[in-house]
Amino acid sequence: MGTTHTHRTVTLAWIAAWLLVAVAAAGSAFAQSTAAGQNRVVMQVSDADPGKWNLALNNARNLQADLGAANVEIEIVAYGPGIGMLKSESVVGNRIGEALGTGIKVAACENTMRGQKLQKGDMLGGISYVGAGVVEIMQRQQQGWAYLRP
Amino acid sequence: MGTTHTHRTVTLAWIAAWLLVAVAAAGSAFAQSTAAGQNRVVMQVSDADPGKWNLALNNARNLQADLGAANVEIEIVAYGPGIGMLKSESVVGNRIGEALGTGIKVAACENTMRGQKLQKGDMLGGISYVGAGVVEIMQRQQQGWAYLRP
Amino acid sequence: MGTTHTHRTVTLAWIAAWLLVAVAAAGSAFAQSTAAGQNRVVMQVSDADPGKWNLALNNARNLQADLGAANVEIEIVAYGPGIGMLKSESVVGNRIGEALGTGIKVAACENTMRGQKLQKGDMLGGISYVGAGVVEIMQRQQQGWAYLRP
Repeated sequence: MGTTHTHRTVTLAWIAAWLLVAVAAAGSAFAQSTAAGQNRVVMQVSDADPGKWNLALNNARNLQADLGAANVEIEIVAYGPGIGMLKSESVVGNRIGEALGTGIKVAACENTMRGQKLQKGDMLGGISYVGAGVVEIMQRQQQGWAYLRP
Repeated sequence: MGTTHTHRTVTLAWIAAWLLVAVAAAGSAFAQSTAAGQNRVVMQVSDADPGKWNLALNNARNLQADLGAANVEIEIVAYGPGIGMLKSESVVGNRIGEALGTGIKVAACENTMRGQKLQKGDMLGGISYVGAGVVEIMQRQQQGWAYLRP
Repeated sequence: MGTTHTHRTVTLAWIAAWLLVAVAAAGSAFAQSTAAGQNRVVMQVSDADPGKWNLALNNARNLQADLGAANVEIEIVAYGPGIGMLKSESVVGNRIGEALGTGIKVAACENTMRGQKLQKGDMLGGISYVGAGVVEIMQRQQQGWAYLRP
């Protein structure tokens, strides 16, 4: 009887261990699905067109107005011909400052900067830098962010 | 013997309950993955360019031709400078009517309409309205829709 | 005693079977989440603008430079007004050849080709063909690829 009892206890323990694995795996997958439901948007700015720069900033402002600035994470990534949006002399410099103030992340592509011989001192203050704009945009989508090309 | 049996039965019931939790969680995650495989496309129209409006409508028609209209869900969202696509006098008004007839959803951004002092009476009949075009586009992606910017 | 033992063994077998279902379902969902984290990008080329064609090729090159060509899967899909990128006389013909040599997939839309009376003999060598460019782009996103519109 004692042997049988021990045997069953071991079997139950083994089942319980597998249960934990199943629950953990399911929980992990579930958490990722839930994370994908968060309000996160990565915006691409790759045109040398101040009209597009203003549109991107309008889109960001509307996302914040509709959802509440605290409830949406926004990252604007400028690269290629769009890098001018973030130069010191940018015509939307004031609006970038305002956007940064509301918690929007604004990132310049260092690949593009190297290609155009731009230093950080040539750029607007307060912005972020990413190694490669396209990689950043790809990775954000992999992390579940929505993509918007204004 | 009776006590031991009851004890084991309770343990087995506890294990079964946890099993149901694991199966439910896994099933939920699995269902979401599967849903992401459906044919659903949200299209962004944000340019004041009738050429782009026609391209968007061509893209939608090609999706339907290739997959069968019953097998793909399409939503065209017009906002910002693209709102003109859905005004009463739009040069693609007839095509919008045809698209609506095939089950395509066509939505105008009320934020943009307010900004341009447009009323529903100024717009094409049969279209839908969304509070903010960018929010709609973000949410559709969160729900697993593919994104297309013609 | 023998009967009780058999009864319990059957119950344990039943639990084990459900466990396998739970683990399999969780594993499947988990695998899909993981697959979504791979470096895969589908790029849309739908403008009759050689500047955009070069941008797309630059973007692809930067993705490879930053991640390593072996670590990122890239597919460029040309359709609609963008089909000219892949015609024999394309101004970016040499660059397409180089891109193909590094493992980038470059696909032309057969729908568009039919509409423009183009045969495969009118196109660059080494490229791929897809029935409908928009369907390809939608399906890649469904499979977890990031989307980029240069």
